[in-house]
Amino acid sequence: MHQMSAASIRVTYLIRVAAADVRARSEALLLEQAVELPRAAVRNHWVAEHILGCVETIAAVSEGIHRVTIAHPVATAAADPAQLLNVLFGNSSLQPDLLLEDVELPDAAFDWLPGPRAGIGGLRALAGVPGGPLLATALKPMGLDPAGLAELCATFARAGVDVIKDDHGLADHPFCPFEARVEACLRAVEHAARETGRRALYVPNLIGTPERIGRQLEFARRAGARAVLISPMLVGLPLLHQLASESAGLPIIAHPALGGVLRAAEPVLFGKLFRWYGADAVIFPHSGGRFSYGADTCRALAAALRAGHPRARPAFPVPAGGIRVERIVELLDFYGPDCILLVGGSLYQAGNALFERTRSLVEQVARLASAGRTA
Amino acid sequence: MHQMSAASIRVTYLIRVAAADVRARSEALLLEQAVELPRAAVRNHWVAEHILGCVETIAAVSEGIHRVTIAHPVATAAADPAQLLNVLFGNSSLQPDLLLEDVELPDAAFDWLPGPRAGIGGLRALAGVPGGPLLATALKPMGLDPAGLAELCATFARAGVDVIKDDHGLADHPFCPFEARVEACLRAVEHAARETGRRALYVPNLIGTPERIGRQLEFARRAGARAVLISPMLVGLPLLHQLASESAGLPIIAHPALGGVLRAAEPVLFGKLFRWYGADAVIFPHSGGRFSYGADTCRALAAALRAGHPRARPAFPVPAGGIRVERIVELLDFYGPDCILLVGGSLYQAGNALFERTRSLVEQVARLASAGRTA
Repeated sequence: MHQMSAASIRVTYLIRVAAADVRARSEALLLEQAVELPRAAVRNHWVAEHILGCVETIAAVSEGIHRVTIAHPVATAAADPAQLLNVLFGNSSLQPDLLLEDVELPDAAFDWLPGPRAGIGGLRALAGVPGGPLLATALKPMGLDPAGLAELCATFARAGVDVIKDDHGLADHPFCPFEARVEACLRAVEHAARETGRRALYVPNLIGTPERIGRQLEFARRAGARAVLISPMLVGLPLLHQLASESAGLPIIAHPALGGVLRAAEPVLFGKLFRWYGADAVIFPHSGGRFSYGADTCRALAAALRAGHPRARPAFPVPAGGIRVERIVELLDFYGPDCILLVGGSLYQAGNALFERTRSLVEQVARLASAGRTA
Repeated sequence: MHQMSAASIRVTYLIRVAAADVRARSEALLLEQAVELPRAAVRNHWVAEHILGCVETIAAVSEGIHRVTIAHPVATAAADPAQLLNVLFGNSSLQPDLLLEDVELPDAAFDWLPGPRAGIGGLRALAGVPGGPLLATALKPMGLDPAGLAELCATFARAGVDVIKDDHGLADHPFCPFEARVEACLRAVEHAARETGRRALYVPNLIGTPERIGRQLEFARRAGARAVLISPMLVGLPLLHQLASESAGLPIIAHPALGGVLRAAEPVLFGKLFRWYGADAVIFPHSGGRFSYGADTCRALAAALRAGHPRARPAFPVPAGGIRVERIVELLDFYGPDCILLVGGSLYQAGNALFERTRSLVEQVARLASAGRTA
């Protein structure tokens, strides 16, 4: 095992394999992800020297579990977001004895990876919240018409919520067409702003084929939307890259739908890849809600989103997934001020008292934030 | 639990849950995938009646494992391929206590799902093989230049391989640009056809953002390619849908890269969804190779691809993943004549005898096919 240059893609896997077999398994993994041929069949010297990386480190983690880091020349990724996924976890995703644990990219990869367009600072500017946590909620349920959703949007905006996003299940349904919904919700936010003096950030959900999403983005931008929501695993991570790279694009909040199916550690997929491909904020289930993420996973995920990086802006963690309003203090302790707290169902359960419960949550967050800032 | 109309999306999950809790868990899953709100917070009657489906059946499979079928009104999918994934496995993919086991769609969904453009019959016509199995191989490794790949392509074409596809890791690398590669390989196939009288089907790999793939498809079509390869999980399943729906598109062979799913049964993802979204042939690892799929999984996957359907053409199963030439008889017994056998590394190991080993495999397949046809 030799060390490659700094300009390598470093992929770390946890592999279930006996100590006696780990060397051969690692070599097979290296070949699988690069040339997909036995080493003896790689007959071209240039390929052997410039395409085939190396197994850099092998370490025993516990009985029958090894941590293996493989370095691939960055050229294998072809400056292409889909091909990068291929190198990291294309065929190897089909092999159940391993987990993708970590990925490191050379800075040069950010010549072609966009990273967040706005990031934490840019989204703060859009939402008009220079410091402290932001409060977000979702418009739902699927099935309401544009007027019904706009009414909810108005209520949340008047109550002082910073970010009001569509539920990720709001598509271009005949009973609630995308264009009518976006126009109605933007109008609702404008009206509320005249009353409150603060304009909430309404974030429409884009969903569909790349072509449809392109049309939705264009419409939303012209209508006055200042950020959009997409689910990168539903629509394709390379589309996130494309949208984040377009000069006429908008900041993007990413939703984790369909992202649970991979044998990849959540901080890598949601914390690193989503950010690198251009998400400005990433929604994920906080531990203790309807999903099973542990506190360590959430901490690592948030750290990956906000980690200092020479080329990529930090992105907002957006803990979500059944956060009850009673847990706000705990969450702010856990995430600190650079986060967007996404609270949905717990507000909706207030029924006719939706405005009051939302208003009270807004005030609580403001108090906690101001206490935190002076502390 | 009541029965919904035939026009429902039926999703079957295996859930790890105690008998005492299965009813509540199923209700929570229904709500999660539709309205993402507690039932009490669904205050709109139209939504409750037209959007919220029902838990149709609950059956104990074994101690602590239940099979649960949920029916959603087809309207929830919004005639949208990304939103359909959302309804099937958006948030629920993030919950580790369940496995997506099966999906049934009403025929009406094929008003907007394209299904295979060419299917088994159309690909047979393109390859000029009216009956019996087709033999395929892959051009590799990544790192060869267009001339090097074209030379391999010529060798395989002269030896009589029916389908010659790019390795799925051949991207638009500077050392092997997409356009030069496609032109060189198409020329190689043409030259070989003059010699042999049969034109092999060269299938270039499209990879990148949706925009780049659109340009690649257009170039490949104009250059004379008659089918293309994509990896739907790398590039996004909705893009497969878009490409399969375009009138100027080409038949599509789908590669499973990044599709290694922990919590969805392989026959659903590769057998049903890939076909419904428009793949004409689907590559997957046959049992006994470098991957761990069992024979039952492969059988179910192939059955799903070829199952009779009132609206969608059958698609070719393409067993692959380290098939040794010695296993051809076994594979033909297993899959029968409607399959494409994809053999790569096992041929490449012949080194300088690549033509001879390929030729001998072609002849073996022809003998077996002709024996099968007369049997």
